[in-house]
Amino acid sequence: MEILTDNGTLATTLRERRQRLAKVIDFPVILWSGQRSPRNFSANLYPFRASSHFLYFAGLSLENAAIFLHGGKLELFVDEAPPSSALWHGEMPKREAIAQAIGADAAFPLSELPSKSTGAATIAVQNATIYRQQTQILNRSVAPADAAEGIDRELAKAIASLRLSHDTGALSELRKAAAVTVEAHKAGMRATLTAKIEAGVRGAMEHVIIAHNMTDAYGGIVTVHGEVLHNEQYHHPLQPGDLLLADVGAETSMGWASDVTRTWPVTGKFSPTQRDLYQIVLAAHDACIDKIRPGIEYLDIHLLAASVIAQGLVDLDILRGQASDLVEMDAHALFFPHGVGHLLGLDVHDMEDLGDLAGYEEGRSRSSRFGLGYLRLNRPLKPGMLVTIEPGFYQVPAILHDPEMHSKYQEVVNWERLAQFSDVRGIRIEDDVLVTQEGSEVLTAKLPTDVDAIEQLIQC
Amino acid sequence: MEILTDNGTLATTLRERRQRLAKVIDFPVILWSGQRSPRNFSANLYPFRASSHFLYFAGLSLENAAIFLHGGKLELFVDEAPPSSALWHGEMPKREAIAQAIGADAAFPLSELPSKSTGAATIAVQNATIYRQQTQILNRSVAPADAAEGIDRELAKAIASLRLSHDTGALSELRKAAAVTVEAHKAGMRATLTAKIEAGVRGAMEHVIIAHNMTDAYGGIVTVHGEVLHNEQYHHPLQPGDLLLADVGAETSMGWASDVTRTWPVTGKFSPTQRDLYQIVLAAHDACIDKIRPGIEYLDIHLLAASVIAQGLVDLDILRGQASDLVEMDAHALFFPHGVGHLLGLDVHDMEDLGDLAGYEEGRSRSSRFGLGYLRLNRPLKPGMLVTIEPGFYQVPAILHDPEMHSKYQEVVNWERLAQFSDVRGIRIEDDVLVTQEGSEVLTAKLPTDVDAIEQLIQC
Repeated sequence: MEILTDNGTLATTLRERRQRLAKVIDFPVILWSGQRSPRNFSANLYPFRASSHFLYFAGLSLENAAIFLHGGKLELFVDEAPPSSALWHGEMPKREAIAQAIGADAAFPLSELPSKSTGAATIAVQNATIYRQQTQILNRSVAPADAAEGIDRELAKAIASLRLSHDTGALSELRKAAAVTVEAHKAGMRATLTAKIEAGVRGAMEHVIIAHNMTDAYGGIVTVHGEVLHNEQYHHPLQPGDLLLADVGAETSMGWASDVTRTWPVTGKFSPTQRDLYQIVLAAHDACIDKIRPGIEYLDIHLLAASVIAQGLVDLDILRGQASDLVEMDAHALFFPHGVGHLLGLDVHDMEDLGDLAGYEEGRSRSSRFGLGYLRLNRPLKPGMLVTIEPGFYQVPAILHDPEMHSKYQEVVNWERLAQFSDVRGIRIEDDVLVTQEGSEVLTAKLPTDVDAIEQLIQC
Repeated sequence: MEILTDNGTLATTLRERRQRLAKVIDFPVILWSGQRSPRNFSANLYPFRASSHFLYFAGLSLENAAIFLHGGKLELFVDEAPPSSALWHGEMPKREAIAQAIGADAAFPLSELPSKSTGAATIAVQNATIYRQQTQILNRSVAPADAAEGIDRELAKAIASLRLSHDTGALSELRKAAAVTVEAHKAGMRATLTAKIEAGVRGAMEHVIIAHNMTDAYGGIVTVHGEVLHNEQYHHPLQPGDLLLADVGAETSMGWASDVTRTWPVTGKFSPTQRDLYQIVLAAHDACIDKIRPGIEYLDIHLLAASVIAQGLVDLDILRGQASDLVEMDAHALFFPHGVGHLLGLDVHDMEDLGDLAGYEEGRSRSSRFGLGYLRLNRPLKPGMLVTIEPGFYQVPAILHDPEMHSKYQEVVNWERLAQFSDVRGIRIEDDVLVTQEGSEVLTAKLPTDVDAIEQLIQC
């Protein structure tokens, strides 16, 4: 692990975070980082990713560590590497050096952790082995993070209230992730004409992310089958007439994420039908970003996207009726079945481990409506929130060929007209948008969205 | 998951494997594939890697599946994806289509699996959740794979006896992995002069692997600190005078691995001291490969590497004495502290999940000698075995600065002469070598090892 010599910037950031936490809760907290999971044998491990709540307060991606937070103080619990590990893993930073880098008030071996467990709250980690340790050390049951109870739930709410608005330290990292992600997408566009399969474009994008010593924030999507929303296959050939949808985001070494989607033609030229539908998605994207400012309800941003898409499809004679009526009856969701975006931060769906506790304002819950059930964020926007804006248009066989859907929307869909747009299976345009005091700032603005600029990047 | 249309080649390969198994054991077997592990939240998962034993008999990387093997027959147990998953994950192959592709004799939902559990042997998977399911469904304790007992141990031995010698289907995959790995290393060399940090070279190498829709067989090493044997940091700058050590291998979608190391100068030109030591490691590498043929003890290959390195260091006046005496007293291990290689197949250290059961001939166990304790393979070689040959030279501070080592080898090391070679921290040259009837075949032979060819690749 690299310990940054940053003149105490990280330590200051972390101190301010725990002091803010101490203003919201008065009980002690223990957060665990987790450990690596084995892949095919115990010495062949998946890359380590520390728990995001740990990272928020501890800053560094420390394996098998814990922090104790109370009254604005931080105590670090981590074991020194045994001398025998130096041959295989090199000299590891000493506990005291780590403690100094993160501004810890004290540091101890893990064996001292049980002495801190009385009355401490925690959040369950994802790693099954460390999760069992949490219950053992706290000597009580610990519910999974999305079903936290008692002081654990109070802690989850308190952390969510902090993590909802990003501080300067977080924004610095988020901007780095965004900048590398922009470069990755440009490299993907430039690699398209020579790539034979989806994986060829993906390789060029990952090249950029890995070369900047970052990782994927999530399993990237690079597919000619954009109608499969979480497609993780990369073996399909790139064939003339295909659109390629790339949803790829970098994560910094401190764990901060970016999440960006672009859709482009594999030949470098949008067909007229592709261009028509692309412009509708882009109009929705732009309208949503224009509307973002403090106080606006994110649900209204989603409904704006739905409305712009519905109107665009009416203009193309794919839908029939008034946009407002069509949105009311969820007709837009035939083609735009997911939410317009989500929180972004240490997690690509920030704090999704807590269920909807962070994404939904207290007292609100998921809608059962076809067009709203997948909306991951339903809160009024506040300065410092980072959200994605990612409207899309898809022809999903499982939706459009569903007899129930077909009959329900028989009257409002011009199926014959729709058939003329068969060269569009999926389009999504996604950017990372920061809510500012004045309005918004698109962290990923340097990646073009307009058709001409994208065609130029592919063909250059 | 892509189901290959290969005219039944896979099904034939798998049928032959289970028929071979049925000749060695007569009890039923259930093998589980495992499931994905969550990263930072439950919907953000590490890439799936099926258990290697499952892959050997089931061929395809099926998540959360099991196979029942008995008397040369295979029954597949896997659930169909729910219709609701089509929106997010697309149409999944049906159970029957998978069963046909792998030549299963029957196929059932997972709920039917307990009916097959009586008297069945298994091998514990790495995933903690599925491991618990193994004990529940078999209704007995299941020891970890490296401590298997009773019929589980009999099964492990039987599988090891099969997997030790690769069949045509395996070799076809292993050659694909080797070919892509060769290209990845060439790309890394070509990227060196423009890269600023280690990660820049790594990005170019991963680009090739990902573009071929393969994955890393292990956490790659791309480092100017080759003296750290399992270095997984990539942030160091490339500075004139540095050697870069890259130990990176691709894995095919069916799970078959490659494992290759090259070491090259970041400027494109070896210094005289780097060249001297590189030639010693290369001489050991070449001598070992020349000696590989059926019947040869792999331990003798290791000792040959030790001897060539010791003699080379005597010739350079770094060590003093007779090579044979120096090897006897483990003086070579000051600079070459690891084994000369290991088995390679579905795992990069093939079957290491079984401890030394596959790597060590029955009745043999690890040596306590400094120079031999890390040797992972100690068997007579047989046709069809794939092994790595990877001698190295390192200046490991934890070894060379250790007072005990220093005094023990005070007389035989010319410390002043050694100090002149301070621009060499780590060199390793590793290829994948197949034992054939006639001798050996280097699967990775297209990647140059000689100084001039490597310098040319970097500078082109």
